[in-house]
Amino acid sequence: MNRTEPVDTPLGDDFHLYDTTLRDGAQREGISYSVTDKLAVARLLDELGVGFIEGGWPGALPKDTEFFARAATGELALKHAVLVAFGATRRADTAAAADPQVRALLDSRAPVVTLVAKSDRRHIERALRVDVAEACAMVRDTVAFLVGEGRRVFLDAEHFFDGYAFDPDTALRVLDAAGQAGADVLVLCDTNGGQLPLQLADTVRDVAARTGLRLGIHCQDDTACAVANSVAAVQAGATHVQCTANGYGERAGNADLFAVAGNLVTKLGMPVLPTGGAAELTRVSHALAEIANLAPDTHQAYVGASAFAHKAGLHASAIKVDPLLYNHIDPATVGNDMRVLVTEMAGRASLELKGRELGVDLAGQPEALTSAVRKVKRLEAEGWSFEAADASLELLLRREVVGPDRDVLDEPPFVLESYRVVLDHRADGAVTSEATVKVHVAGQRVIATAEGNGPVHALDAALRSALSPHLSWLDSVELSDYKVRILAGHPGTDAVTRVLVESSDGEREWTTVGVHENIVEASWLALCDALVHKSLRTPRV
Amino acid sequence: MNRTEPVDTPLGDDFHLYDTTLRDGAQREGISYSVTDKLAVARLLDELGVGFIEGGWPGALPKDTEFFARAATGELALKHAVLVAFGATRRADTAAAADPQVRALLDSRAPVVTLVAKSDRRHIERALRVDVAEACAMVRDTVAFLVGEGRRVFLDAEHFFDGYAFDPDTALRVLDAAGQAGADVLVLCDTNGGQLPLQLADTVRDVAARTGLRLGIHCQDDTACAVANSVAAVQAGATHVQCTANGYGERAGNADLFAVAGNLVTKLGMPVLPTGGAAELTRVSHALAEIANLAPDTHQAYVGASAFAHKAGLHASAIKVDPLLYNHIDPATVGNDMRVLVTEMAGRASLELKGRELGVDLAGQPEALTSAVRKVKRLEAEGWSFEAADASLELLLRREVVGPDRDVLDEPPFVLESYRVVLDHRADGAVTSEATVKVHVAGQRVIATAEGNGPVHALDAALRSALSPHLSWLDSVELSDYKVRILAGHPGTDAVTRVLVESSDGEREWTTVGVHENIVEASWLALCDALVHKSLRTPRV
Repeated sequence: MNRTEPVDTPLGDDFHLYDTTLRDGAQREGISYSVTDKLAVARLLDELGVGFIEGGWPGALPKDTEFFARAATGELALKHAVLVAFGATRRADTAAAADPQVRALLDSRAPVVTLVAKSDRRHIERALRVDVAEACAMVRDTVAFLVGEGRRVFLDAEHFFDGYAFDPDTALRVLDAAGQAGADVLVLCDTNGGQLPLQLADTVRDVAARTGLRLGIHCQDDTACAVANSVAAVQAGATHVQCTANGYGERAGNADLFAVAGNLVTKLGMPVLPTGGAAELTRVSHALAEIANLAPDTHQAYVGASAFAHKAGLHASAIKVDPLLYNHIDPATVGNDMRVLVTEMAGRASLELKGRELGVDLAGQPEALTSAVRKVKRLEAEGWSFEAADASLELLLRREVVGPDRDVLDEPPFVLESYRVVLDHRADGAVTSEATVKVHVAGQRVIATAEGNGPVHALDAALRSALSPHLSWLDSVELSDYKVRILAGHPGTDAVTRVLVESSDGEREWTTVGVHENIVEASWLALCDALVHKSLRTPRV
Repeated sequence: MNRTEPVDTPLGDDFHLYDTTLRDGAQREGISYSVTDKLAVARLLDELGVGFIEGGWPGALPKDTEFFARAATGELALKHAVLVAFGATRRADTAAAADPQVRALLDSRAPVVTLVAKSDRRHIERALRVDVAEACAMVRDTVAFLVGEGRRVFLDAEHFFDGYAFDPDTALRVLDAAGQAGADVLVLCDTNGGQLPLQLADTVRDVAARTGLRLGIHCQDDTACAVANSVAAVQAGATHVQCTANGYGERAGNADLFAVAGNLVTKLGMPVLPTGGAAELTRVSHALAEIANLAPDTHQAYVGASAFAHKAGLHASAIKVDPLLYNHIDPATVGNDMRVLVTEMAGRASLELKGRELGVDLAGQPEALTSAVRKVKRLEAEGWSFEAADASLELLLRREVVGPDRDVLDEPPFVLESYRVVLDHRADGAVTSEATVKVHVAGQRVIATAEGNGPVHALDAALRSALSPHLSWLDSVELSDYKVRILAGHPGTDAVTRVLVESSDGEREWTTVGVHENIVEASWLALCDALVHKSLRTPRV
């Protein structure tokens, strides 16, 4: 429990880019983070350079309690960000120091605590069932207690805008109670997401003038205005903005961190991220979608794959003259690319560029490039995707070019003869998986059988059993992640399946892809690519 | 070619809700409308009650030419809307009357024409390669010619906001040229989507004051502010707003018609749709996604399936007290529903509420409720998720309560003895899947074997083969979707797998879930729940 201010960010503590993906974002239907996921999310957000990361609600959710415990014992070393615990004010009939929920916030060892409090009189009276004086006392006591214990405290004023419109005095009393007790930022929350920017900006200006307190903003997207509302609030004086990655959140979601940061940096010229941070927006957005196991939104502002894609037509020739006449910003600013769709030229150029990135020189071999473009197009039409599978793409490209790597690939480390997987759900209820592989390796034909928790696990185990006596490097290779996506447009259980396999040898990680109507075969293709790719990087003896 | 004003809409011609899904929306990567699709889209938009439907660019695109031809010969009878043809001003070196592109606009027989014109001096000089005087002449001549031919003309001033910021005189000269020649509405277009609402509203106010012309607005979503910008422009004086269904459009898309209409109706109290129109927003949005062959965005404001879904245990008890404390509007206003999601964060209150929604009364059976809460928590800790699997949750709840449904569940339609799945990748490269099931149904023991494209498909086929002679309702049940999620935090191929199965019997759809370390067993569990759930809804004979 140390610093309470962001480090190495241009605006320091003067402006807070505050992320609540791990708490409010996790409310999105379909998201269920493990503790390991949460740690990975926090690390990516810190790499991007947000100032504050709200990690969850310790005490209320066991996973969040564990997250803070693991973070505190060294699993999360934050370069820029400060970790924040979220919680509620004390119960109506309990002293703050005696409220177990409040104690859990201390126990989390997070240096900053964000407390949520009701500021709409109707919610205070009808949901909380106390009077305004007691509601203010709950805020005052809890803030004062936590500040007394050395924590920095922010207050999320729930349903603030509706509350302020209905009864401004109550809403302001709640803010004042928190401010007087030592809360540092009063966050005005559009909890039900019903606001529009012009009125919201007026309210923020009004409240800033009437209270003199430091204000923050937290917007939901129920009017499709969360990003606009957040930016308008900043223009009206808020210096703390709460967002979630890709706008994940309950109902229509929250204000999207990437669009808010993109707008603040490129439109308002506010350096809210460290140097180089803006150029990471696209990468971090896609990585966080991956962890949430959601497909990235291709049409997302700033970071979507289509955000700077132009359909050939009206603008095509003019775009070549000057892209900035048609793009609102240079896509590279946010780590994205311009794409002109459906032209073979674009395919060649980007594949050549990608090849260079992967160490495969296609520039000097135009025929290899033509053949690779054709192959990639055909595979993508069948459902393959190389966006997240550089290792498979590298193998595909290396198979096209002439050179020593091609020779290696002509003699792969092993050749499959056949495999068989048998799955049994027995009469006693036991479920078993067994796989047998027949492979040729080091001049021999090897047969091996193994069991596993499921068909792919059994197949992987059998393959390892067959190969590891012959391939010394195999033991260092581990499967670190395995993802399955059923491709849309192929309904039912006979859908086409795409499998991504991430492998690690302790030094580097690489990802391979397989596509087939049979999920086990798709997995097999990705597994094989993973091992072939490793063999390319292994000196032959 | 008749009326040029909307019919039977509360605001008549005073406010234009203008849809350009069929022209600008069709620029979205992945959308390709047939002429029949375009007619269907136009009919749905007319049912909703928009005032103007831009059908395309006749002359430029053969499909659009055909669309207008078929519309004009009676295939499109519009109740409310006016059909609009989109096109460009005359070429620099041609008289309007002699320009084939302009003639094609007349030939379309659309009563209204929207002309696009450049208003940014940089675009005029560098893309159009004429001087400002000639650009204005092109606008003036073309507008005057079409007005002279009896058409109502709107002008889309392309890149207006950037142009106005760079050189306001040029931008205003273009508007004035069009206005003086008889254009009825001057539409300010944020073509590259780079605007934010506060500045955009200032510009609209400024231009309205300086020109006295009727203004419209057309926004792209590159800052994630298209809806906010459109609404802000209306608040600043625009009386014509151009949108696309679900925000379809190039790059990040356009302003979403449904969110803009939702905001204007429910937030600003502007009756921009005919009576009953707002309640059609959800239905029409989903139908238009269907025609575009895109999955509806579950998190879309107002109309998404999750737009009024509540996950947090925090609010569930209060939602019972008064839903309007937590929803920004009554979901029925826009034809949507509130849903309560069951998750690890949920407690007794939300499970009881969810039970009521599913027709299972837990209020009177506190012990059943306690047991159900315990079971849901345990399963969710193991990786189950009932958020998207109402049918499985209903079965779980019905198994807890005492009553006739419980008796049905005590005698399920079939009982599994065992299954076996064999997957072969043969030496000749062929991949096969074969499943055998042994089940007890209608007092008999049945064994059946079937092949499939993959293990789950084979298992489904074998089960159907075993059961369908005995269960008459089975043939009506189809698997309509199948989703697989490998649960993070369990790395490698021995991960836990969650499968969601969506089934349909032609009348309703229901979703079930299965979780297991073996993907085939997880699928089996979801498949079985799907059939048991169907049997509950099927009268026993």
